[in-house]
Amino acid sequence: MLGNTFGRVFRVTTCGESYGIGKGSGLSVIVDGVPPGLNITKEDIQKELDKRRPGQTPLDSPRKETDQCDIFSGLGQEGLTTGAPLGIIVYNVDTQQIHIDQYASYKDLIRPGHAEYTFFTKYGKYADWCGAGRASGRETVGRVAGGAVAKFILEKEGIEVIGYTKEVMGIRSKEMTFDEVKENYRKNDLNCPDLVAAKKMIDRILEIKDEGETAGGIVEIRVRGLPAGLGEPVFDKLNATIAHGLASIGAVKGIEFGAGFKVANMKGSDCNDHPYLDGDRVRFRTNNAGGFLGGMSNGEEIVVRIAVKPTPTLSVDQPSVDMYKMEETILSPITRRDPTICGRIYAVGEAMVAIAIVDSLMMAHGYASVCKIDNPWRQI
Amino acid sequence: MLGNTFGRVFRVTTCGESYGIGKGSGLSVIVDGVPPGLNITKEDIQKELDKRRPGQTPLDSPRKETDQCDIFSGLGQEGLTTGAPLGIIVYNVDTQQIHIDQYASYKDLIRPGHAEYTFFTKYGKYADWCGAGRASGRETVGRVAGGAVAKFILEKEGIEVIGYTKEVMGIRSKEMTFDEVKENYRKNDLNCPDLVAAKKMIDRILEIKDEGETAGGIVEIRVRGLPAGLGEPVFDKLNATIAHGLASIGAVKGIEFGAGFKVANMKGSDCNDHPYLDGDRVRFRTNNAGGFLGGMSNGEEIVVRIAVKPTPTLSVDQPSVDMYKMEETILSPITRRDPTICGRIYAVGEAMVAIAIVDSLMMAHGYASVCKIDNPWRQI
Amino acid sequence: MLGNTFGRVFRVTTCGESYGIGKGSGLSVIVDGVPPGLNITKEDIQKELDKRRPGQTPLDSPRKETDQCDIFSGLGQEGLTTGAPLGIIVYNVDTQQIHIDQYASYKDLIRPGHAEYTFFTKYGKYADWCGAGRASGRETVGRVAGGAVAKFILEKEGIEVIGYTKEVMGIRSKEMTFDEVKENYRKNDLNCPDLVAAKKMIDRILEIKDEGETAGGIVEIRVRGLPAGLGEPVFDKLNATIAHGLASIGAVKGIEFGAGFKVANMKGSDCNDHPYLDGDRVRFRTNNAGGFLGGMSNGEEIVVRIAVKPTPTLSVDQPSVDMYKMEETILSPITRRDPTICGRIYAVGEAMVAIAIVDSLMMAHGYASVCKIDNPWRQI
Amino acid sequence: MLGNTFGRVFRVTTCGESYGIGKGSGLSVIVDGVPPGLNITKEDIQKELDKRRPGQTPLDSPRKETDQCDIFSGLGQEGLTTGAPLGIIVYNVDTQQIHIDQYASYKDLIRPGHAEYTFFTKYGKYADWCGAGRASGRETVGRVAGGAVAKFILEKEGIEVIGYTKEVMGIRSKEMTFDEVKENYRKNDLNCPDLVAAKKMIDRILEIKDEGETAGGIVEIRVRGLPAGLGEPVFDKLNATIAHGLASIGAVKGIEFGAGFKVANMKGSDCNDHPYLDGDRVRFRTNNAGGFLGGMSNGEEIVVRIAVKPTPTLSVDQPSVDMYKMEETILSPITRRDPTICGRIYAVGEAMVAIAIVDSLMMAHGYASVCKIDNPWRQI
Repeated sequence: MLGNTFGRVFRVTTCGESYGIGKGSGLSVIVDGVPPGLNITKEDIQKELDKRRPGQTPLDSPRKETDQCDIFSGLGQEGLTTGAPLGIIVYNVDTQQIHIDQYASYKDLIRPGHAEYTFFTKYGKYADWCGAGRASGRETVGRVAGGAVAKFILEKEGIEVIGYTKEVMGIRSKEMTFDEVKENYRKNDLNCPDLVAAKKMIDRILEIKDEGETAGGIVEIRVRGLPAGLGEPVFDKLNATIAHGLASIGAVKGIEFGAGFKVANMKGSDCNDHPYLDGDRVRFRTNNAGGFLGGMSNGEEIVVRIAVKPTPTLSVDQPSVDMYKMEETILSPITRRDPTICGRIYAVGEAMVAIAIVDSLMMAHGYASVCKIDNPWRQI
Repeated sequence: MLGNTFGRVFRVTTCGESYGIGKGSGLSVIVDGVPPGLNITKEDIQKELDKRRPGQTPLDSPRKETDQCDIFSGLGQEGLTTGAPLGIIVYNVDTQQIHIDQYASYKDLIRPGHAEYTFFTKYGKYADWCGAGRASGRETVGRVAGGAVAKFILEKEGIEVIGYTKEVMGIRSKEMTFDEVKENYRKNDLNCPDLVAAKKMIDRILEIKDEGETAGGIVEIRVRGLPAGLGEPVFDKLNATIAHGLASIGAVKGIEFGAGFKVANMKGSDCNDHPYLDGDRVRFRTNNAGGFLGGMSNGEEIVVRIAVKPTPTLSVDQPSVDMYKMEETILSPITRRDPTICGRIYAVGEAMVAIAIVDSLMMAHGYASVCKIDNPWRQI
Repeated sequence: MLGNTFGRVFRVTTCGESYGIGKGSGLSVIVDGVPPGLNITKEDIQKELDKRRPGQTPLDSPRKETDQCDIFSGLGQEGLTTGAPLGIIVYNVDTQQIHIDQYASYKDLIRPGHAEYTFFTKYGKYADWCGAGRASGRETVGRVAGGAVAKFILEKEGIEVIGYTKEVMGIRSKEMTFDEVKENYRKNDLNCPDLVAAKKMIDRILEIKDEGETAGGIVEIRVRGLPAGLGEPVFDKLNATIAHGLASIGAVKGIEFGAGFKVANMKGSDCNDHPYLDGDRVRFRTNNAGGFLGGMSNGEEIVVRIAVKPTPTLSVDQPSVDMYKMEETILSPITRRDPTICGRIYAVGEAMVAIAIVDSLMMAHGYASVCKIDNPWRQI
Repeated sequence: MLGNTFGRVFRVTTCGESYGIGKGSGLSVIVDGVPPGLNITKEDIQKELDKRRPGQTPLDSPRKETDQCDIFSGLGQEGLTTGAPLGIIVYNVDTQQIHIDQYASYKDLIRPGHAEYTFFTKYGKYADWCGAGRASGRETVGRVAGGAVAKFILEKEGIEVIGYTKEVMGIRSKEMTFDEVKENYRKNDLNCPDLVAAKKMIDRILEIKDEGETAGGIVEIRVRGLPAGLGEPVFDKLNATIAHGLASIGAVKGIEFGAGFKVANMKGSDCNDHPYLDGDRVRFRTNNAGGFLGGMSNGEEIVVRIAVKPTPTLSVDQPSVDMYKMEETILSPITRRDPTICGRIYAVGEAMVAIAIVDSLMMAHGYASVCKIDNPWRQI
C-alpha cells in the first residue's frame, strides 16, 4: 500500500497501472530534487523509455504500448528545470476490451510465479486483477522515466551507467572492457555486447519460445567515472541502496557486486584488490570489490549483476488454485508473453542504479554543487 | 528543491505550477497509502477543490481557473481503490499569454511579501518567475486534492474536519459549538459561521479592497470524533505534525492550539482541563488543551487556529529591488489579486490537518484496520 | 511508540526516562550527520544542558538532577569528531525510592494537564507511570544535548541562536535589538533581557508560587547571521520544520513568526516588508515576516515565539479520574514543581531551532561544505 | 556521515566504535517502535551478542571483547517495555594501548580490502584510524542488539529466524529441512548444520589460517512462520528491504533469494512454484521464489543467502599506498585476525532480516496488533 517512493534527497515517486480507469489514465512519476537550470527534454526521457518498451523484437511481448511520455510540470518558460519537481506521465493507449476480458477470465486464479496470491492476501478482492496492477512489469515505466532524469544529471557529471545482458540459459558473455561493451551492446535484440554469445543466446531463447516457455538470465550494470567516497557508512552504504533498488525490480532473484558469489571460494589475498598509484591517483589492480570499499565508491568501475528469473507467464498448462472457490485448477496457456525480459530489464536496472547514485551525490554535496548551478545571488 | 512530500505512511507528493510548459501541463498529486476498496470518485476530490478555487466571490482573485481534476491512476475496473497510489491531476487552463507577459514585465523585481528574493538566492535565474511557480498559492491544489482523499477516509471513521474564518482585521467571530459552525459556515463568501460578524468582516474587506489593499485574518480548524491516543510521543506528536503541515502553507504566520497564546496569561489551575466521567468515557470540562495531552489526542475536539497574513499582492506602488540591475525601484500596482484568502485557505488547512491525522491513524493501526477492509484471505 | 528522531540529514535520536531501571540508566541521544574534524567537548554540551537544569533558582523545581553528560562515541583518538555519530548520555542520579513511591501513590490517576490519560489509552498499564516517562520535561535533555552539537556547528558558520523570556502573566518585555538581548538575557533567573520587566515578572511568579500555582509565558527565539535561501519550498519550508520542532515540546501551545497573530489585523502594505539595498546586499526595512519568505530564510533575523503553558503540576487539590477504578476522585497537591518553566524552556527552544537549521544547511550543502572540512583527498 | 538508522516504523539507530575515547565509551543502539509490555531482559540481548562475539573459537579473531550489554532506557519499574525506545550499550573493555599503537603504526596506509581509502577520501585525516571506526566489524554489535529485540518480538508471533554457514571455500552443505538445521547448526564452531561438511570446512579453514590467509563462504538465513502478504509493493518490497539490510553488512558481496542466480539457467516452468491446497491453506510445491511473490511473503519459508568475502586482514605482506606520502609501500602482516567470519556473521544476518520483518509487520499492522497488547483503555 506504500512503498512508491525511492530515494532520500533525489526522490522518485511513481503511480499508475496499465488498465487504470479514468480520463487520462496512465503511469506517472514525480521526480523531486532536480537541480535548476537543466535543459532536459521529453526526448531525453523518451530515449530511455524506448529501451524498455515491449513489442519491438521477437524476444519480447507483442504488447503494443507506445509509451510516449509528456513532462507536465517542473519546466519554466525557457524550457529549463526550475528546481521544482518534474512530473512525467505516460498515457495508456493499449487498453482494449479484449485484453481486459482475458484478464477477467482468470482473475480468481493464482498465476504461478506471479503476485496474485500475495495481493489476494493483502488487498483481498480489491486487488487490481487487470494487467497485474502495480505488480506488472509496466510499473517500471515510472522508474525508467525517473532514472532518465538521474542519467541526465550523471552525464553532466561525467558519469556513465550501462546495463546489458551478461548471461542467458547458461550461455555467458565473455569479459569485456567498458568501451568494448559500449560499442557493441546495442547491436542486437538482447543488448548483449558479446556478439558471438548473443547469437547463441537468441537462438536458444527462440527455441524456448517455441516450447511456450521463457528463459532466465543475468544482467550486468556498470558505472564509470564515479569519484571515490560516495555513499554513507553503515546502513546507507551505496551498494546497499543499489541492492535495495535492484531487488525491488519484480523479476530479480539475486544481486552481486564485483566477484560476487565467487568470493565464497576465494582466499583473502586472491580477493583483496591491491592499491597502487596511477600518477597522483589511487587505483586498484583488480576489481573484485566491484567498485566499493566499506560500502563507498572507491573510484573503480561499479560492477553489479542481477539474476533475472524467466518470465512467469507461459503458453503451457499450469497448476493453479481458484482463490474464490478455494479449489485446485489448471491455468490455461496465455498468449501474450515475453520469451525473456533480459533484453529490456537492463533499462530498469540502469535507472535504479542511476537514481541511487544521484541520491548519494545530492546527500553528500547538496543540490547546488551537483550540476554546478551558476547563481550570482547564492548565499549558501 | 525538495520537500514535495508530506506524511510518513499516508503520504502525498505534489508537483506542478500554474504556467508550466509542456503538453498536458498541470498540478498533480500522488497519494500513497490509500486503503483498498474505497469508492472515492473524482467528484469527491472536486468538491474539496471547489472550496479553494478562486474567482467565485468578490473577496478573491478574479483568476479564472476551473481547477477540474481527473484521477488518472489507482482505481480498479470496478472503480474502487486497489491499494495502489492515487494519481490526481488538474490541468492548467488559464495560461493566457497576456498574464505570462505581465509576469515577465516584473520578473527581475522582488515583490514585497512574496518569495522572489529567496528563490533568487536559491535557484538564481532558473527560478520560475511566471505565476510564482511552487511559491504560488495555486501550489495548494495538490494539497487539497490529497486532503480530499484523507477527508474521505476520515469520514468513514466518523471523524469530521471543519475549517472556517474566525477573525478578520480585528473583527472576531463569537464562540460556537461544532454543530452551530457546521450549520452556518458555508452561508457566506467568507465561510464564517457567525453571520453577524461575517457581515462586518466582509464590509471591511471590501473597503480595504477599494484601497488597493488586502486583509489578514485568523482561520480555525476543528476536528470531531477523534479517538484518544492518536499521535506519537516526543518529536512526532500529532500536534507537531499538524503544526508542520499548517506552517508549510505560504500565508501562515502563526499556529495555536486550544487556548493558544492566551496560556501566557494563565495560572495552572485556569489552564489545566479537569477530567470527569461521562458514562464510562473520560471527558474534560474545558478544552484549553485544544484536544491534545502529551501531544496525543485526548478525545476532545481538536481546535487549532492559524494566523493568515494579508495577501502580499497589492494595487499600490511598492518599493522593490531589481535583482539583475541591483538597484532600488518601484513595483507598480498589480490588478489580479485576492482581497483576502481567509475565505479560501480554510480548505488547505482542513487538508493538512486531515492528512496528518490519517497518517497518524495509519501509523498506529496499519492500513488494514483503517477502513476495515473485508478480506477473507488476510493473514496479517 | 515512535517519533524519537528529528531531522533528515542532521538527525537526533533520543531515548531515556528519569526513572528507567537497569545499570547505567539515563537519557541519551545519538547525533547523526556530524561533520568530521570538530573539536567539540563534553563541556560544550554541558554548557547547554546547564541552561535547562532544574533546581538552580526559586523559579524552578527543587529536583536535584545534576545532568552531567558524557560523550561515549564519535570522537577519535585526537578528540575530534570523525564523521561518526556522537553518542551522548546523561546518567540518572536523583532516583530515590521516596520519589518513586510518590509517583506510585497516584499512578492510576489522571493528573490534569499531564499526559497520563493519553498514555493510558495508547499503552495501557504498561505506560511508564514513574516520573512521566517520555512525557516528562526531562525528556528534553536529549534534545538539548543534540542541540548543543547543532549550536556548535552554527557558531562555526557565524550563526547565533538565542532564546529568552518575552512575556509572563501578561507582563511583556520591551522590544530590544539582538545585541541588547545578548548583553542582558542571562542576568536574571528568568533569562529575560528587559531587566525592569523581568523584576515584575519574577515578583508575580513568586506570588503565584505561594498560591501553589504556576505561571504561563512566552519565549522568543532569534537567529542572526543566517544566509538567505535556506529551507526547501512546499512542505519542508524552514519555518515549517522549526514549527514542527517547537510544537513537539510538551508545554508549547502556540508558535508564531515575526508579526505572528498580529497579521490578522494588518493590511497588506503594513505587513509587507519592503526590500532595499544595503551596499550590494538586499535587506528589508521591517521584519514582519520574521526572517522568512516563501518559507526560506531571507537574510533577516529569524524571530519566533512560543506560548508556554503554566506547568500542570500544582500544589492544590485537583479533580481527577482513577483509570483502574473508573471513578472520579481528587488528586492531592504535589510538592516538587516548577512555578514556571519559561526560565528553562528557552534552552529547548534554542536546541530545536538550531537542529532544524543545521539540518537544512546540510540538506542544501552536503556535509562537506558545512564546517569547511580540510581534506586534500576529497573527490566529491 | 549518516546512515546510522535502519527501519521505518521499527527503527534501530546505532553509534559507537571500538576505540572511542571518553568516559563510558562503547557501542550503542536506540531501538524505536518497541511495543509496550514485553518482558525482554538484557540476557535476551546478550544471548544474541554472544553469537557474534570474537575470541571463542580457533576460527575467529583472538580479540578479547566480552561485549556485555546493559539496557539503559525503555524499561518501566516492573521491568517491562513501556513503548519508549530501548537504549542498549556495550562498553568497550579491550582498548589496550598496545593495540592502539599497532593501529597508529599503519594509520596512513591503505589496508587492501578495507575501507581506509574511501574514508580518507570522504573524511580526510579526521577519519577514525583506530580499529577501523564505523567500518569495523564491531559496528555490528548495535545491529545484533537491535536484532535481538526484533527476534524477541518475532518469537512472540511464532516466527523463527535462523542463519548458518552454507558453504566455505567451495565445500557446500547438503540441503536440509528447517528442523534438521535447527537441531544441528549450533553443534560446531562454524554453525554449519551439515556436520560432515562442517568438518571438511573447518579443516580447510585451519589450513588456510596456517598460511596467514582467510576464507570466504556463503551464509544462509531462513525464516519460518511468516504469514503471507507481508511487505509493500514496488520499492519497499520485503525482499528489497532485506537485501538493503544484508548488503549493508561490510563483508557481503552478493545476496540471493530462493533459487537465486540459478534462475539464469531455468525455463519458466522449472522456475515457477506451483500452488496447491493444503487443507484450506495455499502452499507451493517448490520454493524457487525463496518465499516471495511480488516482493511480499507468500507463506513459504524465506530463504536468502549472502556471499561473505574472506576477511581482508591477512598475515602476509600486501601492496599498499601511503596516503600522506602518496607513495607505494608494503603493509606488513597483521596478527589478530578472523580466519573466517562465516561462523559469526550469521548472527548479523539474522538481525538484519529480523529487523526488516518486524518493521514490515509494524508498517502493516500498527504497533498495537503486533504483540497483541492487552489494553482496556485502547480506543484506536
